Amino acid sequence: MLLDHINKPNDIKNIKPGEYGKLAAEIREFMVEKVSHTGGHLASSLGTVELTMALHLAFDLPKDKIIWDVGHQSYTHKILTGRKDGFDSLRQLGGMSGFPNRDESECDVFTSGHSSTSISTALGLCEARDLSGADYRVVAVIGDGALTGGMAYEALNNAGRLRSNLIIVLNDNNMSISENIGFVSRMTSGIRTAPGYIGLKEGVGSVLEKLPGGDALMQRLRSTKSSFKQLFIPRMMFEDMGLTYLGPVDGSDIKDMLRVINDAKRMNSAVVIHVMTKKGKGYEPAEKNPEHFHGVGRFDVDTGMSLGSKGPDYSRVAGAMLCRMAENDPSIVCITAAMTDGVGLKNFSGRFRDRFFDVGIAEQHAVTFAAGLAEGGMKPYVCIYSSFLQRAYDQIIHDVCIQRLPVTFLIDRAGIVGSDGITHQGLFDIAYLGTIPGITVIAPKNGAELASAIRFSEHFDGPLAIRYPRGGIYRGLEDHKAPLRYGKAEIISEKEGDTADSAAIIAAGAMVREAADACERLTAEGYRVTLVNARFLKPFDEELFRKLCNEHEFVFTAEEGAVEGGFGQRVAAWAKEQELPAQIRILALPDAYLEHGDQALLRRKAGLDADGIYGAVSEALTDREG
Amino acid sequence: MLLDHINKPNDIKNIKPGEYGKLAAEIREFMVEKVSHTGGHLASSLGTVELTMALHLAFDLPKDKIIWDVGHQSYTHKILTGRKDGFDSLRQLGGMSGFPNRDESECDVFTSGHSSTSISTALGLCEARDLSGADYRVVAVIGDGALTGGMAYEALNNAGRLRSNLIIVLNDNNMSISENIGFVSRMTSGIRTAPGYIGLKEGVGSVLEKLPGGDALMQRLRSTKSSFKQLFIPRMMFEDMGLTYLGPVDGSDIKDMLRVINDAKRMNSAVVIHVMTKKGKGYEPAEKNPEHFHGVGRFDVDTGMSLGSKGPDYSRVAGAMLCRMAENDPSIVCITAAMTDGVGLKNFSGRFRDRFFDVGIAEQHAVTFAAGLAEGGMKPYVCIYSSFLQRAYDQIIHDVCIQRLPVTFLIDRAGIVGSDGITHQGLFDIAYLGTIPGITVIAPKNGAELASAIRFSEHFDGPLAIRYPRGGIYRGLEDHKAPLRYGKAEIISEKEGDTADSAAIIAAGAMVREAADACERLTAEGYRVTLVNARFLKPFDEELFRKLCNEHEFVFTAEEGAVEGGFGQRVAAWAKEQELPAQIRILALPDAYLEHGDQALLRRKAGLDADGIYGAVSEALTDREG
Repeated sequence: MLLDHINKPNDIKNIKPGEYGKLAAEIREFMVEKVSHTGGHLASSLGTVELTMALHLAFDLPKDKIIWDVGHQSYTHKILTGRKDGFDSLRQLGGMSGFPNRDESECDVFTSGHSSTSISTALGLCEARDLSGADYRVVAVIGDGALTGGMAYEALNNAGRLRSNLIIVLNDNNMSISENIGFVSRMTSGIRTAPGYIGLKEGVGSVLEKLPGGDALMQRLRSTKSSFKQLFIPRMMFEDMGLTYLGPVDGSDIKDMLRVINDAKRMNSAVVIHVMTKKGKGYEPAEKNPEHFHGVGRFDVDTGMSLGSKGPDYSRVAGAMLCRMAENDPSIVCITAAMTDGVGLKNFSGRFRDRFFDVGIAEQHAVTFAAGLAEGGMKPYVCIYSSFLQRAYDQIIHDVCIQRLPVTFLIDRAGIVGSDGITHQGLFDIAYLGTIPGITVIAPKNGAELASAIRFSEHFDGPLAIRYPRGGIYRGLEDHKAPLRYGKAEIISEKEGDTADSAAIIAAGAMVREAADACERLTAEGYRVTLVNARFLKPFDEELFRKLCNEHEFVFTAEEGAVEGGFGQRVAAWAKEQELPAQIRILALPDAYLEHGDQALLRRKAGLDADGIYGAVSEALTDREG
Repeated sequence: MLLDHINKPNDIKNIKPGEYGKLAAEIREFMVEKVSHTGGHLASSLGTVELTMALHLAFDLPKDKIIWDVGHQSYTHKILTGRKDGFDSLRQLGGMSGFPNRDESECDVFTSGHSSTSISTALGLCEARDLSGADYRVVAVIGDGALTGGMAYEALNNAGRLRSNLIIVLNDNNMSISENIGFVSRMTSGIRTAPGYIGLKEGVGSVLEKLPGGDALMQRLRSTKSSFKQLFIPRMMFEDMGLTYLGPVDGSDIKDMLRVINDAKRMNSAVVIHVMTKKGKGYEPAEKNPEHFHGVGRFDVDTGMSLGSKGPDYSRVAGAMLCRMAENDPSIVCITAAMTDGVGLKNFSGRFRDRFFDVGIAEQHAVTFAAGLAEGGMKPYVCIYSSFLQRAYDQIIHDVCIQRLPVTFLIDRAGIVGSDGITHQGLFDIAYLGTIPGITVIAPKNGAELASAIRFSEHFDGPLAIRYPRGGIYRGLEDHKAPLRYGKAEIISEKEGDTADSAAIIAAGAMVREAADACERLTAEGYRVTLVNARFLKPFDEELFRKLCNEHEFVFTAEEGAVEGGFGQRVAAWAKEQELPAQIRILALPDAYLEHGDQALLRRKAGLDADGIYGAVSEALTDREG
C-alpha cells in the first residue's frame, strides 16, 4: 500500500509520479471504507482527491497555508498530513473533527465550517505576510457553491488590489445553483496556462483593429451581447475584478494541475485557478447521488445503502406541514439557502415550484428577499439552520423586524447538532433572537407541537421564529396538546402541597422531553416537582412564571442553547428585578464553544439530559432538606 | 415657485417638460437651505434630483414601489411625495426621518438605513406581485458604493432568474472604492437603449464567424485579455448574471432617463439602468467636497462652512491613539468598511497607507480579513459603527472568536446615535457580543479611558471589543485613572455607613458621566450612594459586584443599550443565581426600536441622563425610607 508511506506532511513528495493514480485510488478506498462506519462529508472529499494531492505536491506544509472553504472537502488533506488514524473516530466525541481544526494540526490554518470565508482569511494572511516580510504561500480552495455567498464576492472585490501572490483554487463541481459560474463550458486549459500566456495578453486590441471590418465589428460588439462572449466567462468575471484567471483545468489530471499551479506561483497578484472536479468521483453510488453523499450517515460500501433506519425527523414534520398549508393557502412561500433537503423542503420544492426559492448560500439575501415577499402580501417561511442564520442577524433586525413583517423563521438544527461540531452547533439563536425587538420565539416540545406551531404561525401577523432540534421527533407527551396561545406556556404536571422543598422546571423545546423523564423519576422518589413547557421563549409567560416563582422553592430553567443572553438568564433577571422569592437555577450550555460528538453524549456531558436534570433538581432539594 | 405646486404624489406630472430644469433648481435650493439648519445627508440627495424626478414621472406612486438603497438619497423623493414641510423638523425628535420610513408615507415601501438590501427586497416584491397577480412596478435604486456589499451580489445572482419586470437603477456617482464598477467609461447610452436594441442582441456570434480570420480571432480572444473588453463592462458583469443592461445614461438628462426607463419597462427580466450622477451636484461646496457633505451638520449656505464648533470626539481619540501606537508597533493595522473619516482614521490612512484597509461596504469581509491578518501575526483593529457591525455577527463568532485571534473591534457610535434614527442606533452590540464565547467587551467612561483601553488592547491576546458613543468626549473624572486590569471595574465613589437605605450604581461607558452627575446630587441630598465604572462588560467584575450586592440595599445598572440580553440583565441573572441580597434595578433602553432625534433628548426620554438616574435612585431609596 502506498498509503502506508504517507504518515506526515510532505510524505507525498516521495511518491513517484507514475504512482499518483494508485495513491488516489487508495485514498478513495480508504475514505469510503472509513466514512461508511462513521458517516461524514464523503462526496466533496472524493471529488477533490487529486486536487488535494496536487496542492500537497506543489506546496510545503505547514509553512505554506491552505485555507479550505467550508472545510468538508478536507479529508484527503487530513490523510496527507498524518491523520489517517483519526478516521476511526471521525466526528465522534474526543475524536477527529470532520472539518479543518487549528487544535488538531499545524496544517489546518483555520477552524472552519461556514461557507464563503476562505478568500477573506487568505487575503488577510497575504497582507500579513507581505507586511512582515515572510515568504510563505497562501492558497484558498473554494467551491462554486460557496461563491454564491456574498462574502466571497466582497473578498474577490478586494483581492484585485493585491500586488503579491495569492492562489484561489475554484473547485468547480458544478453543484452551484448559480448560473454565472456553473454554466462554464468545460474546455481544457490549453494556451491559457502556457508560459507564454502573460506576454500574450497585451496584443489583442491592436489585432482586432487591423482586421478588415474591425472598426465596424468593434461598434457592433459594443452594442450587443454576443454568443462568443460565453468563452470569456468566467475569465471576464474574474479579470474584471483585477484577478488573473487560469483554467479551466481537469481536476483529475495531477500533472496538468501542477503545471498550472506553477504558472500561478509566478504571478504578483491574486490568481484564480479554475479546476473542474466531479463530486463523489470514484465511488459509484456517490457519483450517482452526490447530494445524498454530501453529508451521509453510516452506509453499506457495496450498495451505498444507508444503514440504520431513519424515523421521521423535525425537518420532515415541518416540510409536511408546509405542504399541507400551502395546498389551501396560496400565499405560503418557502425560502431556503442551499439546504432544501436538510430542512425537509424536497417535497415542497417539487409540488410548489413557483412558491419555492433556493437562493444559494446566501442567508442575507434569503431573509431580506422574504421581507419583500411579505411586504407584497405573501406569507414567507425562511428555513435555515440555526448556525447559518447567524449570518442574517442584521437582516432579521433591519429588514424584517423594524418593518414588523410577518416572516416566519423555521430554525432547524437548533441546539446541539452533534457530529458536525464547533462551527455548526446551533447554540446562539435563543440569545441573538432574544436581543431583537418585535420578534416572537417559539420552541415546540415534540413533533406534534412543531406542527401546531407552524399552523399557529399562519395567522400570526409579525416576525416569528420557531426553533427545533436536529434529528428524530419526540413522540412523547402527545396527549398534552393544549392549543398554542400567544405568549403562554403549558403546564405538563403540577406538584401538590406547599412551597417548601418543591421545584418547578421550565423547559424549552427539546428539553421538555428530558425534563419529563427526570420529573417522572423525581416524582416516583417523592420529590414534589412541577413541569412546564415554556413554548414561548420571547415573550415568555410572565403570569405563569410569577406563580411558579411564588409557589416553589426552586425554579429551574432548561434550554439547549448557550447560557449568555439565553432564556434562563432572561427569566432569572426578570425574577430578580421582580423580587420573586424562588431560587433560580439555569440549566444551559456554558459560555464556550462545543465540540463534535454524538448529540446524546454531548447533551449528557452538559448535564442537559434526563439524568443531568434529575441530578440538579434532586441535589438542590436534598441539600435544602438536609 | 414651481415647488408650490408639488404637494402630493404625482403632482410633478403637471409640470411642463420645459420647466423640469427650473424645478430641479428649486428642489436643490430648498434642500440646501433646509439642511443648512438641520444637518443631513445632502450630497447624495443633491446628486439624484433629476433621477428622482424621472422616476416620479415614469411611475405611479404609491401603487408602484421604489426601494431606495440605504435611503440617504431620498430627500427629493420626500419633497415629491408631499413632505416639504417635514424638512423643518428633519431628523429631529418627533420630526421627519432622514431615511425612508414606512410610518411616514405610503410612498416609503421600506424603512431603511443599512446598505445593499434594496435588490433583495425588490426581488421579493416582484415575486409576490407575480404570484398574487398584481401589476405594480418595482424599482430598486442602488449606489455603486452599495454594490460593494456582498448581499447586493447575492441578490443580483438571484435576480437573473426573474422572468418578469424589475428595474434596478444603478446610481453611479463614482464614489465606490470598487474598481469593478467605478472604472466604467462614461459613454452615453446611444444605440444600447434604442428600441432596436433587443432585436440586435442576437446576431453577433455569426457576424464574427463570417469575418475573414474570424476563427483565428476567436482562438486568440479565448486566450487573451483584450483592451476592448473594457467596453463591455459593466454590461458583461450584469448580463453574465442574466440581467439586461441599459446605459449608461446621463443622470442630469431627464428626457434621456425617461426614454431608457420606458425601454426598461418593456422587458420581462430584471433590468439594470446605469445612471451617471454627480454627488453634491448644483451646490458648489458639496461638489467640491462630497465626502464632507455626505452627512453634514449645520452649515453656512454661502460659504459651506460648518456652524457650531466641534470639540474632539471619541472617534478622533481612537484614531490618534492608533497612530501613536502604530509608530512604534509595525504590527498594528486598521480595517474599516467605507467609514474612514467617521471612525477617525483619516490621519492613520494617510500616515500608514500600507497598514490601512478600507474594504468598502463589506463588514463581513472586513472581520474575516482581520482574522487572516491576525493569524499572520498582525494586530488588527476593526473600526466599524455598532449598528453596521451587526452584519458581521457570524464572522465575529466563526472567524475570530472560535480561532481565539487577537482582533480588536473599535465599536464607534455605540448607544444612541441621534438623528440618523431607527436603523442606525447602536443599541444591540452589548447584547449580541455578550452571546459570543471568548470575547472581552470594554466600555470606557471618558476620552482618556478610551485611550487607555486601546493601549490595553495592544498586548491583549484575544478577541476584544471596545465600545464608545458618538460625539464629543467626556472630560470629567479624568483624575480617576486606575490602570485597566482584565475584568476589573473601577470604584468612583463609595458610600459610608451600613447597607440599609443605600444604593450602588454600576454604570457602563457613557452612563458613568450621567451617573456621576446624579451621584453628586444624591450625595448632596444626603443619600448614601456608591458609583462604580463597570469598564468590563464581559466578563464583568464578579468579585466587586458581589460585594456591592452584599453591602447595598439597591444595585442599579446603567447602560446605553437595549435591555434584552444586555449588561444589566446579565448582572441581575447572576445575582439571582448567586442569591445575593440587593435589589437590582436595570436602567437601559427598552426592548423596542428607537426613533431619530437629538442624542441628549433621546437619552433623557429613556431616563438615561443624570436626571433619570437621580430620579430612579432617589425614588427607590425614598420609598424604602417611607
